[in-house]
Amino acid sequence: MALPTHVRIVEVGPRDGLQNEPLSISTDVKVTLIEKLAAAGVSYIEAGSFVNPQWVPQMAGSDEVFQKVSRQPGVTYAALTPNLKGFERALSAGATEVAIFAAASETFSQKNINCTIDESLGRFEPAMAAARDANIRVRGYVSCVVGCPYEGDVPPDKVRHVAAQLMQMGCYEVSLGDTTGVGTPADIQRVIDACSAEIPIEQLAVHLHDTYGQALANIYAALEMGISVVDSAIAGLGGCPYAKGASGNVATEDLVYMLNGLGIEHGVDLGELLEAGSYITTKLARDTGSKVAAALADR
Amino acid sequence: MALPTHVRIVEVGPRDGLQNEPLSISTDVKVTLIEKLAAAGVSYIEAGSFVNPQWVPQMAGSDEVFQKVSRQPGVTYAALTPNLKGFERALSAGATEVAIFAAASETFSQKNINCTIDESLGRFEPAMAAARDANIRVRGYVSCVVGCPYEGDVPPDKVRHVAAQLMQMGCYEVSLGDTTGVGTPADIQRVIDACSAEIPIEQLAVHLHDTYGQALANIYAALEMGISVVDSAIAGLGGCPYAKGASGNVATEDLVYMLNGLGIEHGVDLGELLEAGSYITTKLARDTGSKVAAALADR
Repeated sequence: MALPTHVRIVEVGPRDGLQNEPLSISTDVKVTLIEKLAAAGVSYIEAGSFVNPQWVPQMAGSDEVFQKVSRQPGVTYAALTPNLKGFERALSAGATEVAIFAAASETFSQKNINCTIDESLGRFEPAMAAARDANIRVRGYVSCVVGCPYEGDVPPDKVRHVAAQLMQMGCYEVSLGDTTGVGTPADIQRVIDACSAEIPIEQLAVHLHDTYGQALANIYAALEMGISVVDSAIAGLGGCPYAKGASGNVATEDLVYMLNGLGIEHGVDLGELLEAGSYITTKLARDTGSKVAAALADR
Repeated sequence: MALPTHVRIVEVGPRDGLQNEPLSISTDVKVTLIEKLAAAGVSYIEAGSFVNPQWVPQMAGSDEVFQKVSRQPGVTYAALTPNLKGFERALSAGATEVAIFAAASETFSQKNINCTIDESLGRFEPAMAAARDANIRVRGYVSCVVGCPYEGDVPPDKVRHVAAQLMQMGCYEVSLGDTTGVGTPADIQRVIDACSAEIPIEQLAVHLHDTYGQALANIYAALEMGISVVDSAIAGLGGCPYAKGASGNVATEDLVYMLNGLGIEHGVDLGELLEAGSYITTKLARDTGSKVAAALADR
């Protein structure tokens, strides 16, 4: 299959990235990061989340972030929402889109959000209804699509089932998350293969952590199957507080570098992206997780 | 095209890896590393080089390394040789195979070994004749197959021309080196496409540095084209002293992890490989360049 001509990059750094950083991050830094990402041409930014701040303290100021960030035309500023209350907060803060989530592993669902997968989907029903009323688009995430830190291998059919339920509930797209980064290209293709039996490939995205260094190879394999929406985080920020060893999303800079080489359009300027990455890693006092950023900084 | 069922891993850590490390490394450490790699099931180890120690001081003790290492049946202990004198030293030290090299970029050839590409190939003629007489197999390397730090993009036809010359001189295999790691899967496929027009795909290998994080994706793309010999370095050691920013071969651990996931045989035990990587990074007092090693060490 030919590679897609265009890829939509979903930048999750300000949410999935920052939520797991040990240093406290001010609202102003978050706002500046988001504005720099938009200036670089990123058209979809997950800018915050409205989960209980007791669980994810880094996201406590998301209301303020959404209120303060100066908006660019054509850019989606999305929020992760766990329930109706979160959805209402996201809406009043000015999120242009929201995301909901479910695990493909029962044990992960229990440990992460203390309920079964079905219960977790049920909890989203009121938020989905409210989103329909407010004409707000909802994106779905499935986590642990290859492996679960508690259960090990996750069957592709389980992923397909959860992804299909999210679509039936009204999500316009489902992002398949290899939360622990254990997958290789064969695993990712098996999952995509299973899900695309029920969901058009255009409505599937991949969200791959680089814990085992496989993320870019997996994205390449996904592109070959027709996937054209890819999640990534500036400077490879991120991880999952509930999955040991799940450090780091694939770095947006490294993704953009690969897409440039493949001649795939994405609308992002690598130079400005590197500047956004340099900004946030300086603020976080951490090394970049992007090899491209590290290589070009050496020059 | 279907992926190969078996991949031969060419471990270049003890040579291409160590030659660029800042710490001085004792012969005993090199010998132990090579023995640990063989114990892990690696069947091809580039164990040293016989270049002028003035230029590559880390390889000064290669004679002693070859003499001291206890050999395992079925394992190739190869040496990089720059000329007849180097070949003779390699032979008397007990190398079971040698490698010669040429750049695909004229400027790189000039800066690296102070002669044109044709001159560099000519210099190998006496060594090739001696290898034929001694019944020693010779592997060829082409460096800068995608980009050159001085010239920028390198045309695939230039690579094909140099690779074909190495084969005509009597090499049994040519390894295509992305010395500066700038390539993406499209670049690598273009180079393989060009070279395989003249050289059977079974006689081509890839040697990819991970400077821009693209190495595993590039290897995956190469496997899809039928490449079944892949160079890598334990713990992602290495770089090139003459190419700025050319840090790090693809880590053998990460390659093995991907091959395991793809169901491709390679004969290497990941657990023992991780131990070899842990051994050498401890001796070098550096972090591992393998994400798999880092992830599994966290557990």
